Amino acid sequence: MLLEKIQSPADVKKLSADELKTLAAEIREALVRKVSTRGGHCGPNLGVVELTIALHRVFDSPRDKIVFDVSHQSYPPKMLTGRARAFVDPAHWEDVTGYTEPTESEHDHFLVGHTSTSVSLALGLATARDLKGGDWNVVAVIGDGSLSGGEAFEGLDNAGEYATNFVVVVNDNEMSIAENHGGLYRSLAALRESGGAASDNYFKALGFDYLYVEEGNDVAALEEAFRKVKGTKKPVVVHVHTRKGLGLRCAEERKETFHWSGPFDPETGKPRGEGGENWPDVLRDYLVGKIESDPDVVVVHSAVPVGIGFTEDVRKRVGKRFVDVGIAEEHAVALVSGMARGGAKPVYSTHGTFIQRAYDQISQDLAVNGNSATILVTMSGADGMNDASHLCIFDIPMISGIPNVLYLCPTCVEEFRAMADWAIDQRERPVAIRVPNAVQHRNAAFDADYSGALRYRIEREGAQVALLGLGDFFERAERAADLLAESGIRATVVNPRFASGVDGETLDALAATHELFVTLENGSVAGGFGEHVAARLAARGAKTLVRGLPKEFYDRVPFDELLRRNRLMPEQIAEDALAALGK
Amino acid sequence: MLLEKIQSPADVKKLSADELKTLAAEIREALVRKVSTRGGHCGPNLGVVELTIALHRVFDSPRDKIVFDVSHQSYPPKMLTGRARAFVDPAHWEDVTGYTEPTESEHDHFLVGHTSTSVSLALGLATARDLKGGDWNVVAVIGDGSLSGGEAFEGLDNAGEYATNFVVVVNDNEMSIAENHGGLYRSLAALRESGGAASDNYFKALGFDYLYVEEGNDVAALEEAFRKVKGTKKPVVVHVHTRKGLGLRCAEERKETFHWSGPFDPETGKPRGEGGENWPDVLRDYLVGKIESDPDVVVVHSAVPVGIGFTEDVRKRVGKRFVDVGIAEEHAVALVSGMARGGAKPVYSTHGTFIQRAYDQISQDLAVNGNSATILVTMSGADGMNDASHLCIFDIPMISGIPNVLYLCPTCVEEFRAMADWAIDQRERPVAIRVPNAVQHRNAAFDADYSGALRYRIEREGAQVALLGLGDFFERAERAADLLAESGIRATVVNPRFASGVDGETLDALAATHELFVTLENGSVAGGFGEHVAARLAARGAKTLVRGLPKEFYDRVPFDELLRRNRLMPEQIAEDALAALGK
Repeated sequence: MLLEKIQSPADVKKLSADELKTLAAEIREALVRKVSTRGGHCGPNLGVVELTIALHRVFDSPRDKIVFDVSHQSYPPKMLTGRARAFVDPAHWEDVTGYTEPTESEHDHFLVGHTSTSVSLALGLATARDLKGGDWNVVAVIGDGSLSGGEAFEGLDNAGEYATNFVVVVNDNEMSIAENHGGLYRSLAALRESGGAASDNYFKALGFDYLYVEEGNDVAALEEAFRKVKGTKKPVVVHVHTRKGLGLRCAEERKETFHWSGPFDPETGKPRGEGGENWPDVLRDYLVGKIESDPDVVVVHSAVPVGIGFTEDVRKRVGKRFVDVGIAEEHAVALVSGMARGGAKPVYSTHGTFIQRAYDQISQDLAVNGNSATILVTMSGADGMNDASHLCIFDIPMISGIPNVLYLCPTCVEEFRAMADWAIDQRERPVAIRVPNAVQHRNAAFDADYSGALRYRIEREGAQVALLGLGDFFERAERAADLLAESGIRATVVNPRFASGVDGETLDALAATHELFVTLENGSVAGGFGEHVAARLAARGAKTLVRGLPKEFYDRVPFDELLRRNRLMPEQIAEDALAALGK
Repeated sequence: MLLEKIQSPADVKKLSADELKTLAAEIREALVRKVSTRGGHCGPNLGVVELTIALHRVFDSPRDKIVFDVSHQSYPPKMLTGRARAFVDPAHWEDVTGYTEPTESEHDHFLVGHTSTSVSLALGLATARDLKGGDWNVVAVIGDGSLSGGEAFEGLDNAGEYATNFVVVVNDNEMSIAENHGGLYRSLAALRESGGAASDNYFKALGFDYLYVEEGNDVAALEEAFRKVKGTKKPVVVHVHTRKGLGLRCAEERKETFHWSGPFDPETGKPRGEGGENWPDVLRDYLVGKIESDPDVVVVHSAVPVGIGFTEDVRKRVGKRFVDVGIAEEHAVALVSGMARGGAKPVYSTHGTFIQRAYDQISQDLAVNGNSATILVTMSGADGMNDASHLCIFDIPMISGIPNVLYLCPTCVEEFRAMADWAIDQRERPVAIRVPNAVQHRNAAFDADYSGALRYRIEREGAQVALLGLGDFFERAERAADLLAESGIRATVVNPRFASGVDGETLDALAATHELFVTLENGSVAGGFGEHVAARLAARGAKTLVRGLPKEFYDRVPFDELLRRNRLMPEQIAEDALAALGK
């Protein structure tokens, strides 16, 4: 196998044209085998095989610096930079992360997981090079879908000002995660159709020289283009037309499904493993129901519509009542603020790790204005995603630090529906709802009104110890209380229902009859729910244990291990409570 | 006076061409009088007088919706929509805010203070209109300087996709706050020079129709253009060339100085009032010294270089060692991460209210990567800015929620220099430093090393009560301790030095000998320094009073009143401590 012999880009440079074809085929084979078995980014990586080979044949990495945006195209680059074994040999599949990672290789300059960042990061490398008088090339590789993010624009605009070596490779596979959205994409289409000659060139408008390569999956054509720009003294865009999913029929035909996927049968494209109840389906059914029963409801998403189960058929069904703005979280939040102001009932949804891309917009465009948009923060908690670049544990500190926003944390599907019904209809303020990962059900009655000074709900009355289990960790509080009961302690169990403040009255009342409080949250504790509660209780000198996850960028730690490490298993919670009570 | 009789835009529509000239002159006179006396945004408002008149003559506000970006151009619009008195009559000057404000008028649709947001907000109004079948016009007015912000791009890109009525007026006065930066601005210049005919039109590239108006300070020319686009069924940009500062010589000649200014003599342009020591001067001297003594240091700013005293002469002096990226905070943070990775020593500075525009970049581009950029958060605290849209009190919760970032809080100029010296030279992690507003000096020795597990500094050893005064509030802790001494309590006074975590060892040791802790911080308490401390101490049941500002968008509350309201005056702190001790 050729691939196994590639220790570094120097080995790629030595290959003949025929060998390069073999190498490309082997890369695809390894990719499909690994991704179809354990899941991962499929389509984007299949599309950039030749692009990566050509980059490494023309440029001299790591002396020349190549920065891959969002890293969804990082598997082939890893294979050509000494990490082939992590794709070829199943025993070593877990040796590498799914993203570029400087600790793995000198060819990786940044850990990149969120999108639209490569141009700015690479420009920083170019600026440092110019300060130091270096003469190497700096290359940013960015997908067409990532161009819709404001940070990419800011980087391109700034780079366009400098008369220095800077190459941006636009990997245009005609797709974001789903289809592209935005006027820019008509321009890109016009450029593709005209062989790069169309007028009103976006990249030229920002100050770049421009080169188009139609054969983006042809190593020779790519090499020729890269040789032209190597050593450039001006910023230049190489616009490359690639085919997402190339080499795997199901991925070519169903680009969105195979952007990222769990394990699947590569012959049929059918997913492996069980289905089971999941939040995207719950959210889809709920939101489609809302759209169909209330003409004012609009659902907005930023490029990951499958996060709410809005697959292509659903999108067709609801038409204009669903708006995908592309990768543009800032705009999405400002847009829903405007929609709410205009009398609509907008619901914006994004994953917990991405909501942080719109801090200022939640604060300024939405919360200062008090507009009544609803935000669903999906995949929240440590059981969401567990790559260091995709942790979903910082949303509570972030959102609960912003005035005017009510952050509701339902304990189960039924409570979610009650909260969302109210949030969407009310006109008083922005409301965020934390959608967990685990699908839990509770057979109970839930309030229909969450306005005014929201109160905690005491679900089990006890004494001595009060356990406050936020959202999906409510169940954990109940289980810890069951264990405490075995030790003769009848613990109070509280469903706090919201994280954006505290119910001081309830806390004060409980403090009169309880020696110990334990807060439980599926998120980073620094600035989170538990700290808000502890600060209130500390004024009375009440003992409080704040339990959640430490403020850390942990990488791929299994959920249960993380919980155990941070004493969040029910038996640990009970044990610590007993110890704190001196029992 | 004509202006006093303008009750609504309908009155503007009735005026003759001669009367419009008189009106424009009266608006400018009122503007200059108010702004030169009490300070405010001068140049941007002087430039849009005719633009505002023309907009209100052609469109029918509030039925047609006009959304002004960043509101720096909001004074003339306020004068023409029933709020002239707040500019003409000094007794009513404080009746209106400096920003668009829906509670003031039905012509204002959003409270806007941060920039680059108008397109997205207005598109939300347009989407809601289309849902409801309305036929009014929606107009966003955005300055050329604001176009560099990623959110504006995201909004334009999304809007370019829809076949619906949407007008974007680009008010091009050839300036951001300082000069513009970015390749886009060469395109705008080319459009101005070619009367709108230049190729590679940025707006067309994003899907907009396009119209250029060279005479941006001519009501008739503007009216003609606006009549052409009124009722459009497609998104269209009207690119208007205006003159910033028109009508006031000093503002026309020194556009940057008079973008915003304190009181000044309108004849000479000289500032009124005392100079005195200030942080921009301290920072300028410090940073220029660094640049001149260390070839690796680069200073980066996003459009408000006067915040660090980098006026035009200073910028010329340091040349390429200073980078102004324009209004592009996201890019700025990613850029300095790249610079640090490339071996430079970058220092990025922005105000406390704007750092929140880069939450995700601090987290992902910088902190996950552990790159050693230094961020100076200027004007931090409630004595920074006090408009609801510009509060500088949320930086501690925000930054201290992000892993890997050390947030240092110096108590005085001398400690700032010691911390910054270390931060800039170290290579282990990103460091943010909170630069307060009040210039305080302390005659003491400060550590040269802030690496590893940073410890609190006990500056005065006592018993019973420990006062932890963060940053500029350290002095307040000292004064409260002096008052407590008068009551026979020798309080411990702690300089915590950092807000991004706690020194648990010191807290635990103090808890053994102190009954009460009081934390003091010049910022929002929700998720801030005090809550981190209280959570640690609550595990031991130690009584802690967390003192700072409530999580609120208060508007223009004087600093002392705010402190008194939140029991932050030294005598209130001492009084509350005594009460908590039961004395």
